[in-house]
Amino acid sequence: MNIVMDAFGGDNAPLEVIKGAVDAQRDFGVDITLVGDEKKIKDCAAKNSIDISALKIRHADTVIEICEEPTEVIKGKKDCSMAVGMQMLADGEGDAFVSAGSTGALVVGATFIVKRIKGIKRPALATILPTAGKPTMLLDSGANADCRPEMLVQFGIMGTAYMNKILGVDKPRVALANIGAEESKGRELELETYKQLKTAPVNFVGNIEARQLPLGDCDVCVADGFCGNLMLKLYEGMGKFFSGELKNIFKSSAKSKLAAVMVMKDINNFKKKVDYSEYGGAPLLGTAKPVIKAHGSSDAKAFYNAVRQAKQFTETGVIDMITDALAQMKKVQE
Amino acid sequence: MNIVMDAFGGDNAPLEVIKGAVDAQRDFGVDITLVGDEKKIKDCAAKNSIDISALKIRHADTVIEICEEPTEVIKGKKDCSMAVGMQMLADGEGDAFVSAGSTGALVVGATFIVKRIKGIKRPALATILPTAGKPTMLLDSGANADCRPEMLVQFGIMGTAYMNKILGVDKPRVALANIGAEESKGRELELETYKQLKTAPVNFVGNIEARQLPLGDCDVCVADGFCGNLMLKLYEGMGKFFSGELKNIFKSSAKSKLAAVMVMKDINNFKKKVDYSEYGGAPLLGTAKPVIKAHGSSDAKAFYNAVRQAKQFTETGVIDMITDALAQMKKVQE
Repeated sequence: MNIVMDAFGGDNAPLEVIKGAVDAQRDFGVDITLVGDEKKIKDCAAKNSIDISALKIRHADTVIEICEEPTEVIKGKKDCSMAVGMQMLADGEGDAFVSAGSTGALVVGATFIVKRIKGIKRPALATILPTAGKPTMLLDSGANADCRPEMLVQFGIMGTAYMNKILGVDKPRVALANIGAEESKGRELELETYKQLKTAPVNFVGNIEARQLPLGDCDVCVADGFCGNLMLKLYEGMGKFFSGELKNIFKSSAKSKLAAVMVMKDINNFKKKVDYSEYGGAPLLGTAKPVIKAHGSSDAKAFYNAVRQAKQFTETGVIDMITDALAQMKKVQE
Repeated sequence: MNIVMDAFGGDNAPLEVIKGAVDAQRDFGVDITLVGDEKKIKDCAAKNSIDISALKIRHADTVIEICEEPTEVIKGKKDCSMAVGMQMLADGEGDAFVSAGSTGALVVGATFIVKRIKGIKRPALATILPTAGKPTMLLDSGANADCRPEMLVQFGIMGTAYMNKILGVDKPRVALANIGAEESKGRELELETYKQLKTAPVNFVGNIEARQLPLGDCDVCVADGFCGNLMLKLYEGMGKFFSGELKNIFKSSAKSKLAAVMVMKDINNFKKKVDYSEYGGAPLLGTAKPVIKAHGSSDAKAFYNAVRQAKQFTETGVIDMITDALAQMKKVQE
């Protein structure tokens, strides 16, 4: 198995990508190909005394920046590390792709270079959220600002496959993000999606209000990419807000600093629970081969976990399960 | 000034409404009329030894329930406490209305009984959110699932007036909830709203990503009522999630329980900061007279603060400021 990594995506590239790749190659028994400017990769490794002899390198001239138009990845910047990496998947030279670069470009590239699973309308960005219970998958968390009901239904199918195969959840509870629990709640999009989800091959448990999301009341939460992105980012922001307040509490006096020491272990456990880097990255679901979007601020550990995730994604048959569910739906509809 | 209160709205009615009303009448020097079944109100007060001789009572036969169709408030249930209370405003017998009952019914009743400010398309539910900085107003937080750009612009104008007059914020920073900071981000709704907000009589500071909301990066955040409601409820849910985790941390051992005692004061200060009941309720902005939606789980303190808020709302000329801004916009457009 060859995991292809964009060596120049994210805020900490290429050093943290290289570090994560070396550790992952050693621990997971996979081949890893770093894509990007070969000289820069080698110089960075040498400067930091990292032995990269076990990694492969595929040269790419340029990098697509966050500020550039996403479509440039298939137009003017076909030679960027992200485009070259995804072309390797399309050409059968790689099994999965990991990048911490521009989300928009990754979605465009995955759609037009890696291509979609047959029958899938749009790939969705799927994020694993920590909750008071087990982790929940939120999708679409930002790939498609405008969605139609059939897309949301497919998100439910794809999330089900992922949570079942990768996180081992039996019959994942699929819920629709909405402003009330009743079937009559929401916009046209939610009303129609609700109807369709009732007969889809998923364990649909109805609407979920956003209040219940952090309490772990479902395993897969489907939403259009606009609402999903707002929720994902609010999740992150609330985490920052509360951890900032907690820091203030524990720094306000000598006594509170002592108290902090006394509960340090528990606080660290909690931090680990809500730490995104533990989960690796956000899989882009619906593409013909696994594509993982690592967080822009990923460090070596996050890249390491993203490779583990890419390996599991490739091995466990998530894509086959999605294909089967689509076929089953089509059969019922005919 | 006569503040009209729905004695039968919310989970803790009528007892907590009565308690909050008695305290508020005494402290704020306003008349208060409780609306609802007169016998039940008097029985409840007598049973709990509360002297309600300083309060007025307006009898209403029924109560509109959360599960009923919101339009019933102007159809089959015109005799419910909520409808009767709002009719008092329309008839000039009251100056502001407070209810912890069904949000949907309150929006319908306010629109058709109290009526809108001339020129306002739709009233919006406005919620004050605690942040790492100063409180932020989020609107619409649930009155209108579908919105047009002109409505969002009016939300910005109304939020500006409220934050300026009631919370004393000079030139409130108005931001549009979006999935990216750039002007080109979002759906058709956000693209068009952005354009219109640039020339509206508000201090428009551009798009805000949901991540920045809890950090206090704007004073007024405008969104359609679907997205606003998702964000509001996620805000609440994250609060529950984190306070639950904090409780677990401080209960895990004898040592951590001791630590809890050491930082109790700071934790209580934080709790107070994020406690909704401190702010009273969510004003419904855009109606011809002040209408306040108290939280369904309001206790006496929350009702007390809601009356203070209703009094300020009535006195400080928020509605005049909105009317003036609408006139100014109309003049520019002509």
